[in-house]
Amino acid sequence: MSTPPPATAASSAARAATEAAEAAAPSLAALPLPARASLLRGLSQALGANDAHLASVAEDETRLGVERLKGEIRRTRVQLEMFADAVEDGSFLDAVIDHADPSAQPAPRPDIRRMLVPLGPVAVFSASNFPFAFSVLGGDTASALTAGCPVVVKAHQGHPRLSDLTAELAADVLPEGVLTLVHGRETGRALVTDPAIRAAGFTGSTAGGRALFDLATGRPDPIPFYGELGSLNPVVVTPAACAARGADIVREYAASATLGQGQFCTKPGLLFLPTGHGLDDALRGEYVSRPPAPLLGDWIANAYRTTLTALATHPAVRPLHNPPHPAEPRYATPALLTTTAEALRTSPELLEECFGPASLVVTYTTHEDVLETLRALPAGLTATIHGDEAEDEDLFHTLTSALRTGRLIWNGWPTGVAITAAMHHGGPWPATTSPLHTSVGTRAITRWLRPIAYQNTPDAFLPPPLQQGNPWDIPREVNLPS
Amino acid sequence: MSTPPPATAASSAARAATEAAEAAAPSLAALPLPARASLLRGLSQALGANDAHLASVAEDETRLGVERLKGEIRRTRVQLEMFADAVEDGSFLDAVIDHADPSAQPAPRPDIRRMLVPLGPVAVFSASNFPFAFSVLGGDTASALTAGCPVVVKAHQGHPRLSDLTAELAADVLPEGVLTLVHGRETGRALVTDPAIRAAGFTGSTAGGRALFDLATGRPDPIPFYGELGSLNPVVVTPAACAARGADIVREYAASATLGQGQFCTKPGLLFLPTGHGLDDALRGEYVSRPPAPLLGDWIANAYRTTLTALATHPAVRPLHNPPHPAEPRYATPALLTTTAEALRTSPELLEECFGPASLVVTYTTHEDVLETLRALPAGLTATIHGDEAEDEDLFHTLTSALRTGRLIWNGWPTGVAITAAMHHGGPWPATTSPLHTSVGTRAITRWLRPIAYQNTPDAFLPPPLQQGNPWDIPREVNLPS
Repeated sequence: MSTPPPATAASSAARAATEAAEAAAPSLAALPLPARASLLRGLSQALGANDAHLASVAEDETRLGVERLKGEIRRTRVQLEMFADAVEDGSFLDAVIDHADPSAQPAPRPDIRRMLVPLGPVAVFSASNFPFAFSVLGGDTASALTAGCPVVVKAHQGHPRLSDLTAELAADVLPEGVLTLVHGRETGRALVTDPAIRAAGFTGSTAGGRALFDLATGRPDPIPFYGELGSLNPVVVTPAACAARGADIVREYAASATLGQGQFCTKPGLLFLPTGHGLDDALRGEYVSRPPAPLLGDWIANAYRTTLTALATHPAVRPLHNPPHPAEPRYATPALLTTTAEALRTSPELLEECFGPASLVVTYTTHEDVLETLRALPAGLTATIHGDEAEDEDLFHTLTSALRTGRLIWNGWPTGVAITAAMHHGGPWPATTSPLHTSVGTRAITRWLRPIAYQNTPDAFLPPPLQQGNPWDIPREVNLPS
Repeated sequence: MSTPPPATAASSAARAATEAAEAAAPSLAALPLPARASLLRGLSQALGANDAHLASVAEDETRLGVERLKGEIRRTRVQLEMFADAVEDGSFLDAVIDHADPSAQPAPRPDIRRMLVPLGPVAVFSASNFPFAFSVLGGDTASALTAGCPVVVKAHQGHPRLSDLTAELAADVLPEGVLTLVHGRETGRALVTDPAIRAAGFTGSTAGGRALFDLATGRPDPIPFYGELGSLNPVVVTPAACAARGADIVREYAASATLGQGQFCTKPGLLFLPTGHGLDDALRGEYVSRPPAPLLGDWIANAYRTTLTALATHPAVRPLHNPPHPAEPRYATPALLTTTAEALRTSPELLEECFGPASLVVTYTTHEDVLETLRALPAGLTATIHGDEAEDEDLFHTLTSALRTGRLIWNGWPTGVAITAAMHHGGPWPATTSPLHTSVGTRAITRWLRPIAYQNTPDAFLPPPLQQGNPWDIPREVNLPS
């Protein structure tokens, strides 16, 4: 897919996919919940039955390592099964029944019943760094199918063969048109402006996400666009924590920041330490032992090298460990730079995310110094505080009031996003294009649904979730006349 | 406010208001739920204690009629009190607690707790046609205060004195900066692009809403924009219903379509009747008796006359009752035109909403004829079907599958929107800019909230809704290790 097809071919490819999705939409929406859950479980089984082959193809394209890739397949399966459970539970339908109330104020009230229905066909733009969990059968697709929306997936250029293979496995499980794969950047642009597409999900760069967001909101009929974009993921170590266990924190930090060669949207890219922390040697020690390793592709390695060079040669930045780039163009060596909190807040160019295994240690002098810098950071997906439970309660509240983030972590690490009901993977711009929504966890379903209210409708005419007898046995809020 | 201030003055006015809102945000967000509920109840009491004076000022500016206006004050009070109850209930916080699970698959799970927090200061653009219920203390403001967001209201030019008076009453109830009023179109534009504003709500025209939506989504940091825009609100009468009770339907239709001089976003602007319905005389009879009456302002009357003239002189349209415009420029006489379903679907210019007391009777020949036309209609806030419960079940399903709408009404009328948990007042574009959200009912709160997850955080550090002991006694989803 290195040469995108011309615009007209791109539009035709998008149109063919969206027409198939549109044709499949009514019967997918009408499917009883157990049947919809079976589709999700069937996809999980198909991944499990083919995991060795899938991991091998993925390794060939992404170089993420077979063990990591098999782990990601397990994660993707857990995710599909979690959504299958959520479908069967039915609380995602948010059914509310207000019985008629002739004595209601300020006016008599008719019977009103409300539930959520699928938006229609949606587009999913898959990510480079999670070829399973945020790709063809990843969280965006799984949550959209849960909602009852057919999906057109734009494959990532970093793993086109794996995407084709995954889509073929899905085709054996899903009815025709429920999942269609397209390739190419221009086809992706045509997709997000295609009249049949009612919403889009995206995981990737801020620039790429913003361009598609602008297309989605600029349509004659704007559609919701859920982009999960960049994040710096600051880690703040309090003086008490630094004194008590600085060496442990540094060791764990390096492991989290270089995991998967730093190619996570939750990579902790900024480590705030108190001035005079005395951990420079410990930090260097963690990094010198880490060898060069491949990144997701040459295009990622190129971008990494450019960003790292700009950071490392900045007058306010001092390298702690920054070896020459490896000879192989796709490879990168983990690197660590340092600067001050004051320099960071006065040099916006230091706030560019460096996707890959490089990080910035930021030294701060006083509480006010770190607070002022945290306030100047863009909002992010996560923020982490390492502190002392007995000493740092007030500091925790001051620090968190200065941070705008989707997830706040205490004495832990942001990488390794749990797939649960309470997980929030999102945040205000520029972490995402939609601060209300998450792309991980069961609440991700709400992105693909819209409410509809039925007024004064005969019971037999209502969809099952709203019928008096509750034939689907789902949780409902029922309000009787007062 | 006929001469808007120059752009720099507008920016300064917006800035002063948003700075006050920003300063008020942290303490409003931290307010315990009962105290937040008290503010909402205090606003309701202030409206109640001043209703005669408020209605009199509103009548002077809007000419909607003192009784209607007093009823609207009651509706606005019911709304504020419904939100006060919702605040105290606390389920809007959507608190979810996942306890740590060392044996979770695919990886051990830390303790994760999630709740919704206020987005921050928001802008509310009030409507002309509901000077109380969709204005300074209307549903957008009430739901935003429920969420804990300070509000900057852009007053509607149609009732500036009433807006000032309402804001003065609110200032006696609310802490400083929690509600600020601004005037002028340019100030409104400055507001939606002001960095402190985190979301905006709007009720008004499609053109006005689209312009502000484009500003909100075009910001360097895009913000959610909830616009409730236009709607045609079709009413379809089945052959069975037409035969059984055509005269009753026509009488009730005319009452709904001319209520408040047709100045409702839920005005049923299209009445679909089977060809040969024989109700032309009955329809005319309903309209000839309705006298000219004032509209909300000269600017509304001008737009009404222009749109009505364009419709009435269209070659495919025949007037049933279209008297000359009254001499007083602000006045309008209810009017009724007729066309065919085929003409409607092939003439997009007939699909322009005519805000005011004019409607279009649309005759259809076959089921397929009406279905094809319904499919060609823009999505709307409501759609109504008058049918026979014994005969029309299949037809109900076919008709509703062709309609894209937020609320579906059976044998009733769309005007008079109930203020309840199950109400949905919204719909896909162009009914709104955000198909996921409602501007009426308790679910309207979700527009102003974003999730935050706490990972591995000491109990004492957590906000009360997430602490183990549940000190605020709110409903929560609690997931234990499996």
